[in-house]
Amino acid sequence: MKIKVGIIGATGYAGAELVRILVSHPQVQLVALTTQSYEGKLFYDVYPHLYKYVKQECRELDLPAIVSESDIIFVALPHGHAIPVAQEALRQGKKFIDLGADFRINRREVYEQWYKVEHTAPELLEQAVYGLPEIHRNKIRSASLVGNPGCYPTSVILGLAPLLAYGLVDTDTVVADCKSGVSGAGRGLSLGAHFAEVNENFRAYNVGMHRHTPEIEQELGNLAGESMVISFTPHLTPMNRGILSTVYAKLNQEMTSEQVRSIYEEYYHSEYFVRLLPPGMLPQTKAVAGSNHCDVVPVVDPRTGRVIVISAIDNLIKGAAGQAVQNMNLMYDLPETMGLDRPGLYP
Amino acid sequence: MKIKVGIIGATGYAGAELVRILVSHPQVQLVALTTQSYEGKLFYDVYPHLYKYVKQECRELDLPAIVSESDIIFVALPHGHAIPVAQEALRQGKKFIDLGADFRINRREVYEQWYKVEHTAPELLEQAVYGLPEIHRNKIRSASLVGNPGCYPTSVILGLAPLLAYGLVDTDTVVADCKSGVSGAGRGLSLGAHFAEVNENFRAYNVGMHRHTPEIEQELGNLAGESMVISFTPHLTPMNRGILSTVYAKLNQEMTSEQVRSIYEEYYHSEYFVRLLPPGMLPQTKAVAGSNHCDVVPVVDPRTGRVIVISAIDNLIKGAAGQAVQNMNLMYDLPETMGLDRPGLYP
Amino acid sequence: MKIKVGIIGATGYAGAELVRILVSHPQVQLVALTTQSYEGKLFYDVYPHLYKYVKQECRELDLPAIVSESDIIFVALPHGHAIPVAQEALRQGKKFIDLGADFRINRREVYEQWYKVEHTAPELLEQAVYGLPEIHRNKIRSASLVGNPGCYPTSVILGLAPLLAYGLVDTDTVVADCKSGVSGAGRGLSLGAHFAEVNENFRAYNVGMHRHTPEIEQELGNLAGESMVISFTPHLTPMNRGILSTVYAKLNQEMTSEQVRSIYEEYYHSEYFVRLLPPGMLPQTKAVAGSNHCDVVPVVDPRTGRVIVISAIDNLIKGAAGQAVQNMNLMYDLPETMGLDRPGLYP
Amino acid sequence: MKIKVGIIGATGYAGAELVRILVSHPQVQLVALTTQSYEGKLFYDVYPHLYKYVKQECRELDLPAIVSESDIIFVALPHGHAIPVAQEALRQGKKFIDLGADFRINRREVYEQWYKVEHTAPELLEQAVYGLPEIHRNKIRSASLVGNPGCYPTSVILGLAPLLAYGLVDTDTVVADCKSGVSGAGRGLSLGAHFAEVNENFRAYNVGMHRHTPEIEQELGNLAGESMVISFTPHLTPMNRGILSTVYAKLNQEMTSEQVRSIYEEYYHSEYFVRLLPPGMLPQTKAVAGSNHCDVVPVVDPRTGRVIVISAIDNLIKGAAGQAVQNMNLMYDLPETMGLDRPGLYP
Repeated sequence: MKIKVGIIGATGYAGAELVRILVSHPQVQLVALTTQSYEGKLFYDVYPHLYKYVKQECRELDLPAIVSESDIIFVALPHGHAIPVAQEALRQGKKFIDLGADFRINRREVYEQWYKVEHTAPELLEQAVYGLPEIHRNKIRSASLVGNPGCYPTSVILGLAPLLAYGLVDTDTVVADCKSGVSGAGRGLSLGAHFAEVNENFRAYNVGMHRHTPEIEQELGNLAGESMVISFTPHLTPMNRGILSTVYAKLNQEMTSEQVRSIYEEYYHSEYFVRLLPPGMLPQTKAVAGSNHCDVVPVVDPRTGRVIVISAIDNLIKGAAGQAVQNMNLMYDLPETMGLDRPGLYP
Repeated sequence: MKIKVGIIGATGYAGAELVRILVSHPQVQLVALTTQSYEGKLFYDVYPHLYKYVKQECRELDLPAIVSESDIIFVALPHGHAIPVAQEALRQGKKFIDLGADFRINRREVYEQWYKVEHTAPELLEQAVYGLPEIHRNKIRSASLVGNPGCYPTSVILGLAPLLAYGLVDTDTVVADCKSGVSGAGRGLSLGAHFAEVNENFRAYNVGMHRHTPEIEQELGNLAGESMVISFTPHLTPMNRGILSTVYAKLNQEMTSEQVRSIYEEYYHSEYFVRLLPPGMLPQTKAVAGSNHCDVVPVVDPRTGRVIVISAIDNLIKGAAGQAVQNMNLMYDLPETMGLDRPGLYP
Repeated sequence: MKIKVGIIGATGYAGAELVRILVSHPQVQLVALTTQSYEGKLFYDVYPHLYKYVKQECRELDLPAIVSESDIIFVALPHGHAIPVAQEALRQGKKFIDLGADFRINRREVYEQWYKVEHTAPELLEQAVYGLPEIHRNKIRSASLVGNPGCYPTSVILGLAPLLAYGLVDTDTVVADCKSGVSGAGRGLSLGAHFAEVNENFRAYNVGMHRHTPEIEQELGNLAGESMVISFTPHLTPMNRGILSTVYAKLNQEMTSEQVRSIYEEYYHSEYFVRLLPPGMLPQTKAVAGSNHCDVVPVVDPRTGRVIVISAIDNLIKGAAGQAVQNMNLMYDLPETMGLDRPGLYP
Repeated sequence: MKIKVGIIGATGYAGAELVRILVSHPQVQLVALTTQSYEGKLFYDVYPHLYKYVKQECRELDLPAIVSESDIIFVALPHGHAIPVAQEALRQGKKFIDLGADFRINRREVYEQWYKVEHTAPELLEQAVYGLPEIHRNKIRSASLVGNPGCYPTSVILGLAPLLAYGLVDTDTVVADCKSGVSGAGRGLSLGAHFAEVNENFRAYNVGMHRHTPEIEQELGNLAGESMVISFTPHLTPMNRGILSTVYAKLNQEMTSEQVRSIYEEYYHSEYFVRLLPPGMLPQTKAVAGSNHCDVVPVVDPRTGRVIVISAIDNLIKGAAGQAVQNMNLMYDLPETMGLDRPGLYP
């Protein structure tokens, strides 16, 4: 019997990407797609690529009913809105994955400081699992409540994990300079996402104060075994999909690129979705666009004693919907790659 | 037992798209990828999105050996180069699909006039089938030699077929104004495909003399039952994938958009890959990018007595590799949609 | 003494382009920039490229005061909104140029039919001049009230004018297939101008019903000396600036490309801003982007008996603000090219 | 009498941009445009935006003759090729500006180590001046031989200069993460600049080994008064024009953003082309595209003790041709802004 899936906030880009992936997932039946903006419209009117694939209409959010019809509920809404859904899901004994930020930060006060709102269900934070399978696979398997990582954090954490796990870098020297396509900002209208403003433009934003910072610091700190403070600067690049992160850190000792690479090889040896590229190749967003892969390459610069890690993901897939499906597969003991095992689209 | 596939010219965009589609095709085993430019290199070095999906290296073209190892051979080479391959394939009793132009034109003199070269195997033209399944499905099923349609012709012919089949338009008034993404020009280097020249630029090219013209006229003429001469103007638009065709013709009699639409509904009723969009929607390239669909909508303009048909395809899929796989499925009595039944990527 | 200029609606793209051009115009002093959206903000906060060039703030629209301070008033607002401004300008004896549609259509009923609103000052239509200098230069010199042409009409009319003036084509066969960059849709937010929706997308819109149609038909009809009905289809292309129009018409008699070209040469011989490109070149939007030029080339297709004219403009300059300044120069007996005599930016 | 200018390598992007700027420069007469690729062609055939602006044809490089006809010679060629031109120019007592790398590095051995070629005229390095006017204005005024800075170095050096000049940062902690449009790679064909490879792609390249590194380190070191080693990573972003640099450094002491800003205000107070943006604004490439400005903003992140400086330029103007003209103006005692005092093009 197929898993009955409800998606709350299905008409944003992350939600629609969930729908696209799940209509081809052999073990899933979509039972409810809710939206605030397009109630009563056919889903394909909102997303024409899915014409003939999705026959359902967009429903309003009748929370108890939606949860009751579903085995698992995905929420793709702005922060704050997932909390009541999680509560209802747990009440009814259903599984729950939040693509937003409400269940990513372990410590309530950190969440409240960065998001400037009260967390109204702090008691749930303890059972919430940070849904980065390559780091927390076993906890995810048995979790009912998963906080799916942000797009930037996915690329930065997977890029640095081996170095921190092995204590190879000075944790005080980490700089993460990240570049994202525009779909990361969602489908909501804003001057900052207006075509003529973005096209032929490159800019930084939220310098020193992006909300993905505490999530990155929490996970990197866990890996390093000490609390960490990093510089993280997000940038907007004129393309639809993809994040490329360039992460800098001082090595604690002299190492060659080959030595660092062999540590990555060992660390990611059995990971299907993390691809350590062979020597001579560097990650680029086009090589992962349309797939659930994270491509990664560490480079040692002997002149400066720094290691520079380049990582690339599709922000809507490994950075959002694909990773959420990967988590669902783990939660249901399905092959982790089910519905996600296709290469990207190039060019 | 799986179908053994050889791809000759695998490192162009159409060839690489064939590889991408076929690595996920449940009934196919890739046995040989040949190239002129990257001999001896690993295929993923040339196309990094396929790292971990394709382990083979690019081989040189040892024609008899490649044909002998394969059950079916796809050729994605410039015109002229498919002829010797076709001859060898037929000699060895193998199936053959040409993604180039050598077997699309029934009449040798038309081919030679537009392509400015001699056709060195005109005797094969008789058994070659024009591989547009929606028009020639039955012939394709039993064909050994298929000339896969050009990208522009696919969009124009599917756009006009119902009107011509029913004799509804004045065949002397057809204007096809077509706009293509840049991948249609292939991966070969040229100033016309240099990023800074194409980006933020829109231009027409080959006005009145593009080589897809005779192919369009042949198929439209067959549908109409009379020889046809049309205006066809290709344009380059700053994007990677997609063709949108805007086709104009004078109606022979007054008709409403609804009347014309109902004829399209009937004509394409059982076609999976042609999507007549519901009223209120118009085709756009993004809605088909990454899929094998052709979206189509006819609009009647009562002021001018013209019908304007808009059609959209992904030029590398329904306009090339996807259609070739659709043909292969027919030739092997497989479900026509096998390996091709996923929606596109949006945005 | 410099000309005092007021711009009403200065914070849309056409308005901002007027500001950019006029800050470098040697005979102009900007006295007032009004806006509905950014009242009280510094203009450079809204348009950062003009930081250090424009010190003024955005003012609210106090109509009598603004008109009184100005010698000439430009209006860049949605249709309907220019009428009261025109009335006040004329009352105070000031000159007036409308970049919108309120004074382009001579016949009130045509305006009302296409724009679905009442024209509240039809008596002004008689003295309004259609501001296409290459066609109406003398009338513009002495006009007080100019309706600046739409972007699409500028490209189509300049493309066809010689053919119609000389009666060379069948007026019933004209098809204008036009492609525009996204800035033509303005800075107002809409899903249709959202980056991720436009990028990697090409689409037609308003098929058979775009409001620039009657304006094109009026001017082409005047040139031809008979009323005309044409097919005009606008398309959106993923770039910021530029319109390329491909216009088709049946020739009344056999002519060669050279014969048609010589007629264009004669017709546009003394025009600075219309560039008939030499043989071997075709118009492309990048070659005119950032300039006030309209590049044009006619091609005869002897197979079909059609002439295909390609024309290209920068929609914000020759299609809006540049042409408005060209009109102002004429109205003040300044050299027509003043402030406009620089080549575009390439690449 | 006008300055007679010869441009050697006029058909690359930097050369063509020189031509575009200089045709509008009131004190310049273009006397010779040379090229290796388009000898004998009219310049506008190679760059259609300049049709009607430049009537000359592309000449072959007859060095003594070209130098003899010119008062000043600009060279826009790959490194190594400027040296013989410089020698001939000095022999004939002409002024000389190299847009390439041959005269930027003071120390021959550093040049040879990074560029992997012998410097064949090391004796000229002593009289060569690094042409960054905001740093070396006085030396440039009296120079005959100017090495025009690289595009990345211009953005990084102008971004950091005040901090280093005042000794405010730990020189061992500097990370420069830079993102460039594709025109920086020139007009030469390569797969890395093929439209479909670049569009919808973001990637790093030459990690830890880009040749602009020694030039940046030399100038930063001079400003700091001690030798410096930095991390510099260039990236390619899918757009034509613009560089945005994000530069990180640890502050030597606690400072606020306001304190750092006031130092920038003082340092750049009288600079026309460096715009310290007002609080609330951040540099973006679109705000400088088409202009000679460098926009800059420093931000202090109190959490990490780092200052993050964002700077933006148009790589072909302030990063190449515009800066070269700025240098020429200085060398001829003309107003520094002559021919360069127009705002950019937005959007």
